[in-house]
Amino acid sequence: MNITLTSGKTIAAAPGRSVLEALNEAEIYLTSSCGGKGTCGKCKIIIRSGRVESKSKMKLSQEELDKGYALACRTFPSEDILIEIPKESMLTVEGKIATGKSKDLQELLRSTGAEIEPIADRTVLDLPPPSLDDNISDLERLKRELLTKRLGCLRVPFRFLANLAKTVRKENWKITLCTVHSEDCDEITNIFPGDKKTPRYGIAVDIGTTTIVVYLVDLSNGELVDVASIYNSQIRFGDDVITRIVNATEHNELKNLHKAVISDINILVSLLRKSHHIGVDSIDCLVVAGNTTMTHFFLGLDPSSIREEPYIPTANIFPLAYAGELGIRLNPNMPVYSFPCVASYMGGDIVSGVLAAGMHKKEELSIFIDIGTNGEIVIGNREWMVSAACSAGPCFEGSGIKHGMRATDGAIEYVKIDRQTLEPEIKVIGENALPMGICGSGMIDAVSEMFLSGILDQKGRLRKGVSSRIREGEDGPEFVVCSGDGGDIVLTEPDIENIIRAKAAIYAGFSTLLKEVGFTFDDVHRVYIAGGFGKFLDIEKAVILGMLPELPKERFEYLGNTSITGAYLCILSRRLRAEAEDISRKMAYIELSVSHSFMDEYVSGLFIPHTNINAFPHVKELMKK
Amino acid sequence: MNITLTSGKTIAAAPGRSVLEALNEAEIYLTSSCGGKGTCGKCKIIIRSGRVESKSKMKLSQEELDKGYALACRTFPSEDILIEIPKESMLTVEGKIATGKSKDLQELLRSTGAEIEPIADRTVLDLPPPSLDDNISDLERLKRELLTKRLGCLRVPFRFLANLAKTVRKENWKITLCTVHSEDCDEITNIFPGDKKTPRYGIAVDIGTTTIVVYLVDLSNGELVDVASIYNSQIRFGDDVITRIVNATEHNELKNLHKAVISDINILVSLLRKSHHIGVDSIDCLVVAGNTTMTHFFLGLDPSSIREEPYIPTANIFPLAYAGELGIRLNPNMPVYSFPCVASYMGGDIVSGVLAAGMHKKEELSIFIDIGTNGEIVIGNREWMVSAACSAGPCFEGSGIKHGMRATDGAIEYVKIDRQTLEPEIKVIGENALPMGICGSGMIDAVSEMFLSGILDQKGRLRKGVSSRIREGEDGPEFVVCSGDGGDIVLTEPDIENIIRAKAAIYAGFSTLLKEVGFTFDDVHRVYIAGGFGKFLDIEKAVILGMLPELPKERFEYLGNTSITGAYLCILSRRLRAEAEDISRKMAYIELSVSHSFMDEYVSGLFIPHTNINAFPHVKELMKK
Repeated sequence: MNITLTSGKTIAAAPGRSVLEALNEAEIYLTSSCGGKGTCGKCKIIIRSGRVESKSKMKLSQEELDKGYALACRTFPSEDILIEIPKESMLTVEGKIATGKSKDLQELLRSTGAEIEPIADRTVLDLPPPSLDDNISDLERLKRELLTKRLGCLRVPFRFLANLAKTVRKENWKITLCTVHSEDCDEITNIFPGDKKTPRYGIAVDIGTTTIVVYLVDLSNGELVDVASIYNSQIRFGDDVITRIVNATEHNELKNLHKAVISDINILVSLLRKSHHIGVDSIDCLVVAGNTTMTHFFLGLDPSSIREEPYIPTANIFPLAYAGELGIRLNPNMPVYSFPCVASYMGGDIVSGVLAAGMHKKEELSIFIDIGTNGEIVIGNREWMVSAACSAGPCFEGSGIKHGMRATDGAIEYVKIDRQTLEPEIKVIGENALPMGICGSGMIDAVSEMFLSGILDQKGRLRKGVSSRIREGEDGPEFVVCSGDGGDIVLTEPDIENIIRAKAAIYAGFSTLLKEVGFTFDDVHRVYIAGGFGKFLDIEKAVILGMLPELPKERFEYLGNTSITGAYLCILSRRLRAEAEDISRKMAYIELSVSHSFMDEYVSGLFIPHTNINAFPHVKELMKK
Repeated sequence: MNITLTSGKTIAAAPGRSVLEALNEAEIYLTSSCGGKGTCGKCKIIIRSGRVESKSKMKLSQEELDKGYALACRTFPSEDILIEIPKESMLTVEGKIATGKSKDLQELLRSTGAEIEPIADRTVLDLPPPSLDDNISDLERLKRELLTKRLGCLRVPFRFLANLAKTVRKENWKITLCTVHSEDCDEITNIFPGDKKTPRYGIAVDIGTTTIVVYLVDLSNGELVDVASIYNSQIRFGDDVITRIVNATEHNELKNLHKAVISDINILVSLLRKSHHIGVDSIDCLVVAGNTTMTHFFLGLDPSSIREEPYIPTANIFPLAYAGELGIRLNPNMPVYSFPCVASYMGGDIVSGVLAAGMHKKEELSIFIDIGTNGEIVIGNREWMVSAACSAGPCFEGSGIKHGMRATDGAIEYVKIDRQTLEPEIKVIGENALPMGICGSGMIDAVSEMFLSGILDQKGRLRKGVSSRIREGEDGPEFVVCSGDGGDIVLTEPDIENIIRAKAAIYAGFSTLLKEVGFTFDDVHRVYIAGGFGKFLDIEKAVILGMLPELPKERFEYLGNTSITGAYLCILSRRLRAEAEDISRKMAYIELSVSHSFMDEYVSGLFIPHTNINAFPHVKELMKK
């Protein structure tokens, strides 16, 4: 049985294997945000000919069904079929979009004062050939030469002796050693004959609960070569970390959760490698930043005690692992560094974020907040740091929102509503891209604009009759943000409820943590905001929504995805890696889930902007208008 | 198809699989000195019923063939068969014989002043359970507790995190850590729940070119629990290291040579474990001493440059390996330590021997000689050491000698010939054991006695007619040493030629090396003799043969198998392991194979005792008598 693509390619199908799996096998990757459950409607294909069994039609319009659309993850061929893959279903790399990011990142690296000194290095050695008078062994010869090149100890794992004799003799005693710095020692990870100093790349990974982002970094100059991202396919085991831990522990799914994230990373790395024609032997290391549970799943570690009081992870600072141990399809001896975590609910993504923000080096008091699936907040300066987590949920990453999507091509990232006509003006990510959904910054814009223009009340309910764009949808009342190519893009009342719950949790986290350490918002010199909002986040709108406190605008700094930025910095600099470990050791963690104060603050935040409107004098002004 | 044993056990047979392989599979191990080539005649079985195809009858007498004897390694069942395994064919452990050795070894260990501090250790930790106030991770908890127990660093390989969370919680936060000391750090090799401090054992291995000996050592008190030995089944790839290197290099047999030695060790360890009911988790480490080529084969390293000028091994000091990496059937993470070597032809067995002899700590000048397949000689004291190798051949271990055997039960270890009747008086190893062959010390006795009693001339030819025990055999003239149960035990003229060539090489080595460093035999205070000669070696007889120089008797000390003794010491003491590495670094090596002086000395030694009879004044006296 075969699946032929309209592009001409033919791949093998097998009974019981979905079209999505068959495409994956053939290294053709589609987007998906539900992990293949058939619920997100993103892996659309068009069946041109042939019989199939389709087990889900969710998120497909009647018009699409009439045109032969199906969900690849729930479609099983019954015979040879011909399919078309719509452009928007294809998982792609960012390509040229990465160029701008690269400049910013290289500038950030320079600004830290750190030299480019990747955690995995290559050294080219020209060994003097042995003679009867100089007849030390191959290994001793290699070590002797290294001693002249640098100080410090060298650890040689036994496995590298296997081909040493052949390797040194292959290109007349010239060899390239790949090493990784680990526990005060350089450890050999690979040996090549000849001069293989370049090309060499590193892979930086941000494992978000909802989204996985991968950076391909040129280790010789720090260039960000390209970016790729994907929804974390663990989503099929639950949207949040707790559901996934329950699945791992009580339904024996740890192995599958581990495999899911590894497979996602393999897909992205494979996309990037193909796109830039890079062989596995040119990739020297992989650095991963993720929350504590994500890091445990990534490493295949049992997360069950993370969920139970007193909430203990297996480790916060992880030993180096190797690609082969984890199932990562690169050189099996390639080192994998996992960002250190702080506690069960304060992970490596936040340590990475603090590193990227640089607040651990500043004298002034700063707040760092990462708005992801879990909202994490850090307060402190170069002397001390205290952190807390507030469970915000994944809605700003597009999950749990009907037309939610990540901040990629086709996402509405900006919404302005005309106060008179109540007509929205939108901006979409991507050159000439048609709107396909709405991302986090778009949601914040939309809800605050809808609120200010009277479409929405303080409780987040749509005011029926105010605009012809408010209509009754499948899930109750909804607001039509725009009419897209594949149908209208709407925000439903349940969507808006989700957004309000998320912003309430974030604001409650801010205020509770500040109170715990005895400060007020006025003491805060800087608020660093991280999250997968894309290029822009309109701080003012986030304040109107009541997600962020009302502070002078210049105190806010939106940094984007700092987890991946920190991973980028760490892969290029041993010094910054050491700083990350320092941050993880220095940071204290406060458990908010048991705090009454937090619950009170949360409930007060379930209004727009807040029950205590006096904390938002400027918004109060705007509301009057 | 089945093979039933007269003992009642039935095992599976398969077409194309020899009876020996089928027995091995069922963990029934037979002796063999040819590695399964069908030439040594040691793996005898008796076919009681059923048809078989037998591809070799070598070493089987007509009488045996009539009784149904066959060689298990070259016998293939054609149908169900019933076989008997004669007691002498069974590979066994030494059992009680080891008790005496154990006392000597424990005394030797005490005499070095080293404490029992095995290279692989166990530590029992009683961790304080975590709480909300003490919520560090499992790994940090473990490390914190270790810091209170001892100094130094701890390396945790990634794989040990996998079950850490479950293990610490299994027996209420009590755990046992297995660690190995490696590169100034303790590395975790295993974690068990609860107190598993004992039982714990170590395995010391001497990999000889001809014989492999394994000691099972109780690491808690240094007791030698038991001993087992086997012919190195690499013999099927050649008797000597050079032939085996050629096979590895030119016939692509490296993998098979590696597998052969690993399988031999697996057999012996399995025998010992079964015999003493020891589980794999109670074995903490394995220490191997062998010559450089044997160590390379053991570790699976390409030996080809060992054979070619300038004779370079891959390594002399080897990183720790793990059982799983090598195919050793114990806990895959159990550490394997290989004795450091000096040069391509001066191996870890000699470093181990020098450690056992203790000459590296003495002020006086000593000579150490190990008479194995290769004869290695070391001269020096605590300040310096120079070594050389002389290719003596494996005859003293029983190989290449018609009725040769190792010094185990049934071996003639002592021969005295009555000067009048010319009748031999013999002693056989083992209580009430019947003579089955002749071992190294027996050969030295026999040849020197035959020489002194006029049975043999100076060139090693039998004087026909002198004794009725001299007769024409299959291989030419032979001397009947005794009439055994399974036929006469003889020394043939080719046997005697082999013995003379071996002793000539040894003596030439002595004298050449002494000359090289500017000393004479008179300067030597002590001669340590090592080799697999069993309990006794009659030094006087060895001098008469011309193998050893004529020195005052009290200067000689026979030490037996020092390679295994050094491995025993090393497994029990980190200090002695460090001394071994010191010896390997300190020892110089001189290549004799290119020395004319050596060749001249060798040729002069092809007489009994020597062409230059004046170097042997006492033997000259005896000859006159």
